[in-house]
Amino acid sequence: MTRDAKTDNDNKGSDMHVLVTGAAGFLGQRLVRRLAEGSELSGKPLSRLTLIDQVEAEGPVDATFESVSRALDIASPGALDEVLDERPDVIFHLAAVVSSAAEADLDLGMTVNFDATRALLEGCRFRKLLETRLIMASSVAVYGGELPDVLDDMTGLTPQSSYGTQKAMSELLINDYSRRGLIDGRVLRLPTIVIRPGRPNAAASSFASSILREPLNGEEAICPVPTDLALFVMSPRKVVEALLHGAEVPGDAFGASRSLMLPGITVSVAGMLEVLREYGGDEALARVRHEPDARIAAIVASWPGRFENLRASRLGFEGDRDFHEIVEAFLDERG
Amino acid sequence: MTRDAKTDNDNKGSDMHVLVTGAAGFLGQRLVRRLAEGSELSGKPLSRLTLIDQVEAEGPVDATFESVSRALDIASPGALDEVLDERPDVIFHLAAVVSSAAEADLDLGMTVNFDATRALLEGCRFRKLLETRLIMASSVAVYGGELPDVLDDMTGLTPQSSYGTQKAMSELLINDYSRRGLIDGRVLRLPTIVIRPGRPNAAASSFASSILREPLNGEEAICPVPTDLALFVMSPRKVVEALLHGAEVPGDAFGASRSLMLPGITVSVAGMLEVLREYGGDEALARVRHEPDARIAAIVASWPGRFENLRASRLGFEGDRDFHEIVEAFLDERG
Repeated sequence: MTRDAKTDNDNKGSDMHVLVTGAAGFLGQRLVRRLAEGSELSGKPLSRLTLIDQVEAEGPVDATFESVSRALDIASPGALDEVLDERPDVIFHLAAVVSSAAEADLDLGMTVNFDATRALLEGCRFRKLLETRLIMASSVAVYGGELPDVLDDMTGLTPQSSYGTQKAMSELLINDYSRRGLIDGRVLRLPTIVIRPGRPNAAASSFASSILREPLNGEEAICPVPTDLALFVMSPRKVVEALLHGAEVPGDAFGASRSLMLPGITVSVAGMLEVLREYGGDEALARVRHEPDARIAAIVASWPGRFENLRASRLGFEGDRDFHEIVEAFLDERG
Repeated sequence: MTRDAKTDNDNKGSDMHVLVTGAAGFLGQRLVRRLAEGSELSGKPLSRLTLIDQVEAEGPVDATFESVSRALDIASPGALDEVLDERPDVIFHLAAVVSSAAEADLDLGMTVNFDATRALLEGCRFRKLLETRLIMASSVAVYGGELPDVLDDMTGLTPQSSYGTQKAMSELLINDYSRRGLIDGRVLRLPTIVIRPGRPNAAASSFASSILREPLNGEEAICPVPTDLALFVMSPRKVVEALLHGAEVPGDAFGASRSLMLPGITVSVAGMLEVLREYGGDEALARVRHEPDARIAAIVASWPGRFENLRASRLGFEGDRDFHEIVEAFLDERG
């Protein structure tokens, strides 16, 4: 299955081999479907898609290119050797242990969120994949502590969770490897993704999708936070487009930092509920029960709600126009 | 030589065991002498001082406490086991590979500046040294890129060197371990230290000490930068006092971040030369030859020159009053 590196280099410019880590996850699966639909990246046709995750990720249906799915643990030594030997042109690095798990188990979080990222970078360095574009998904969780009301591109990272710490450390490493010319890295910090599909879960942000999704599906939802709380959100559709754009922007355009916050939009919970009423009527709004939960409210209130991210806009990253567009996208996809 | 951990805990509050890494270096040696002079820390008498470095560090003369010097490589696995088994109350972590060496050898820098810091933290975690105060020396090199004219406590870290990257990553880790209560960590970012003793060296900052030290000693010095360049500086004496203060401030007082920039003072090269003239006369000033070096000027100009570091002041860290005080301290010590 290993291709010859020389042949690969000769083909440079004519085709595109894309590797996705965390490909079985919610974002990974959406990205895979989107890649299959577009069949190209940076104007070059996709020739091959390699999906890796702990379980075998579902590949695209009706794709015009070869797709291989591998179940492996990226945190185990040498796990990435074979896929990196195939010299991917673009790597979407989405694999991560989520916030609550990283907080519960420091070693697990360090191993998956940081050490595996470092191993990925070292694997690329060892194989001299100097032009491979590595796009890592980071998170709003890199911010925390005593924050200004409106954050901007220069706001410092003082994460208040191990997950945020591990992502911030990985960001620094990707920046240094990129500065040294060892890889062409990019880091995109994701806003809270709304509206996620599925069911409510234990994540503190679960309500943000739930208070729209459930009422629009005729079910009840619980709102645990005050309605004046501001959230910084982005639709799954726009996040996936931003990941693709992150692979297409020239590395030099990023300037002195390869990390940026994606252009989410700021919306209050009250504003979200008003849009719910517009699309679902008073009956949908009535399905939201307000049951304050101080623990969840405190966590969510610690996330920054407002950003002035000029660099992302300057680099052509696009967010949702408004919250209506987010709800319409959800209804559109739900069918 | 290993002491019984239980006995140590029983003695908690009555004596103080201090460990210094990088103890043979310029700052380490000054810190050791200062500890011997004061013989106490946080109001408790020093009972033991452990010095580690690659070479055997010189211990204090006439100290009232036991002092042990060990030559070891902190980057080798298990190197710190024995000294951590002795359960130090305070650790000054000064050991590091300098900027130019970390830039020349990525692996060496990662191993010493980051992995050894992580091993130190893990060693403390494994031994449950929850109350041990760990003070790491960080650097102005964690800043870089597109900076505002005046930096403050919220300015983001976008290092433009591997040294700065490794220090910034270590800072994040110390913050997370402290937040989790695994250690009581503190990070002090050092300004450019002026006036260093010794001879000019290859460091880009070498001139900042040299243009004072050499003329005051009747020798010639070269100034490679424009005189309107602003530097953020601190005397060796104040840096050592700040390290001690860093060990004495209660951890809670740091708030959401254990990292801070020390209160250096901003001075232009012209201002430094004016003070040189005041103390050494026109003949001293005439010993400074202006030979512009674009490479050095570019590196030094990339360092931030102005800070508004309110947190450091609020926490009681003190800088030099003015540049006169810095020169007087040098003359005083030179005798």
